[in-house]
Amino acid sequence: MASHMARGISRTLVTIAAVKTRRGTRFAGYLGATLCASGGVLLYAACSQNVSAAQKASSIDTSQFMAAPVTELSVLEENKEDTKAKMELLIMRIQSEFCRALEGEESSGTKFTVDRWRRHNPSEGGGITCVIQDGETFEKAGVNITVMSAPLSKQLQASMRARGKELPDDKQFTFFAAGISSVIHPRNPHVPTIHFNYRYFEMQDEDGNNKHWWFGGGTDLTPYFLEEEDVRHFHSVLKSSCDRHDPQYYPKYKKWCDDYFFIKYRGERRGVGGIFFDDLEAEKPENIFSFVQDCAESVVPSYLPLVKKHRQDPVSEAERRWQLLRRGRYVEFNLVYDRGTKFGFATPNARIESILMSLPLHARWEYMHSPEPDSREAKLTEVLKNPKDWV
Amino acid sequence: MASHMARGISRTLVTIAAVKTRRGTRFAGYLGATLCASGGVLLYAACSQNVSAAQKASSIDTSQFMAAPVTELSVLEENKEDTKAKMELLIMRIQSEFCRALEGEESSGTKFTVDRWRRHNPSEGGGITCVIQDGETFEKAGVNITVMSAPLSKQLQASMRARGKELPDDKQFTFFAAGISSVIHPRNPHVPTIHFNYRYFEMQDEDGNNKHWWFGGGTDLTPYFLEEEDVRHFHSVLKSSCDRHDPQYYPKYKKWCDDYFFIKYRGERRGVGGIFFDDLEAEKPENIFSFVQDCAESVVPSYLPLVKKHRQDPVSEAERRWQLLRRGRYVEFNLVYDRGTKFGFATPNARIESILMSLPLHARWEYMHSPEPDSREAKLTEVLKNPKDWV
Repeated sequence: MASHMARGISRTLVTIAAVKTRRGTRFAGYLGATLCASGGVLLYAACSQNVSAAQKASSIDTSQFMAAPVTELSVLEENKEDTKAKMELLIMRIQSEFCRALEGEESSGTKFTVDRWRRHNPSEGGGITCVIQDGETFEKAGVNITVMSAPLSKQLQASMRARGKELPDDKQFTFFAAGISSVIHPRNPHVPTIHFNYRYFEMQDEDGNNKHWWFGGGTDLTPYFLEEEDVRHFHSVLKSSCDRHDPQYYPKYKKWCDDYFFIKYRGERRGVGGIFFDDLEAEKPENIFSFVQDCAESVVPSYLPLVKKHRQDPVSEAERRWQLLRRGRYVEFNLVYDRGTKFGFATPNARIESILMSLPLHARWEYMHSPEPDSREAKLTEVLKNPKDWV
Repeated sequence: MASHMARGISRTLVTIAAVKTRRGTRFAGYLGATLCASGGVLLYAACSQNVSAAQKASSIDTSQFMAAPVTELSVLEENKEDTKAKMELLIMRIQSEFCRALEGEESSGTKFTVDRWRRHNPSEGGGITCVIQDGETFEKAGVNITVMSAPLSKQLQASMRARGKELPDDKQFTFFAAGISSVIHPRNPHVPTIHFNYRYFEMQDEDGNNKHWWFGGGTDLTPYFLEEEDVRHFHSVLKSSCDRHDPQYYPKYKKWCDDYFFIKYRGERRGVGGIFFDDLEAEKPENIFSFVQDCAESVVPSYLPLVKKHRQDPVSEAERRWQLLRRGRYVEFNLVYDRGTKFGFATPNARIESILMSLPLHARWEYMHSPEPDSREAKLTEVLKNPKDWV
């Protein structure tokens, strides 16, 4: 495998300047054709480390990244002011900062496994999936980046239209997406699960017309036991990020989050919320980008203190069982409702392992489980049914 | 709780003859209004045992049932030849025979817990949910009966239309459904999981016109390790039941089963199949009923021998882990694809605990798990990707 990688890398170096298409606006051309393997074979960690020598020549410092960006460095460099490039470099940095921060909480030295992969058709892009599984602190932690462009399937085109995008039926569309998505399931039930996702989309028809672009994202917390002080800390960090841009953002996106992470048939939310937004397109892209950057940068300070505080709390068997039951609800939300998961299922040749890395290592379903009245479990359930204001 | 039950039961005895509506064809009238609790409170086991004294007076022998039928005995008796009544009595008997057979495999004496429940609006019917959880042989075993009639929501009306039912848009429809549904997750990974479901539907508009009726059902097996002899036994029992009615049934419904229990984004089936059919309406109802009865009666002989054979097989930790991974796939199919689960999610005030009792007690998801080449796990996976003919 290693020698296969090395071969792939040489090819990369050779072709680095030879991949530009006639029109810079075509996404596949934008992505570049960096192939670290032939024939659509998925890529693994070794690739990225070896690439870094080549990157030193660039003015973009990638030395801290978990792997080489999906798009070729030369392409990124030439398009530095393009939102696509800015977003890709942002999510690369956020991935790295978040992963390093989490690794710092693994006292046994567990590190993220880094998978750099291409789509089945490599010119459509790929991603970098970082995972810790069965760590001491993190039972399952996934931080995934996807940078891709592909034809929009008819099914997705219809669902985009249902969301209000004007996409003429007789046109074939291509979309570009760059996003980071992460779910962290800690082992200790006193440490909440966190999820965040920040993404940028562009869409255009085959003639380069009917262009659309928008940002979406959010960060939300799923505790197993309600520590109000922790939830207030989490929400107040998110609120600060929002307030720096618009005082209306936090209340609006907090409510959107409560409404979105809702398991309708259970009448309860997945967790204690956070912020959630989609289809942001009404302002200048640089303003929205700056807001998204602020949100993404608030993940570590909103969450790490909770990990540090509780990761060594004593745990009873009953607490562990309750955690697993709540993880069952997490699975239910993700498989039944989550828009990102459904988008993945509907994308031809999607990399399903990177989509479903959000699922916990273990989950449990008991028939008719109901918390004892006035118990800590009941207290949490109450807040999931009736969301509160935290800051 | 017990005294509350007793009060409910007295009311039942008093009202037993007073519930007939003007028109026998209206389903709510058919169901009767047996209330074992006021205000839509759910019912538990105690109820059914106490009711049996009243039932002795009837010519219908309910003494072996897990609980009193959902429909009042007097109503069942008056409508003995009606397919609704025949189906309800069939599924009551099948539930009981299957539960007793499984209880026989619990050497520690574990018995099914019996929940007799009504819908939120009790005149819409209810069900009987029997569950073993954390048994010695069965980690989670659920056998549920539902007998209900309710207005068809617009969403379900549209989905019925998409399936080819002629339901004029300007009419309000009511549906009647009587079905048994069961999923058995044994503890030992060498005992397969079984699922079966047999159901009868009627539908009509508010004026009693635009009537539709049909049967659906199936039985399918999900082994964790492939014992070809076991799979052949299972399929051959199903085939015998089919062949007694039409030699074309087994091949047709075997293929339907392989096509239905398919996790598209994984490119694999949930298990090794069995039979599956829906919308059976082309023959006389008594003929289809007789076929469905034969299928339902074949569940015990198709499955029990496998339980007896393997329930005490030695189990390694790796085998248990593989079982939990496959249970994760079971969860994926049920939450993402299963039509019955989706029907339940779309039914207002559905009893979600009876729908999701199909989920295992434990499930596991590992990132990028892939069986070793030529391993027993790989052998199973191969058959899930490329279904075989077994008999």
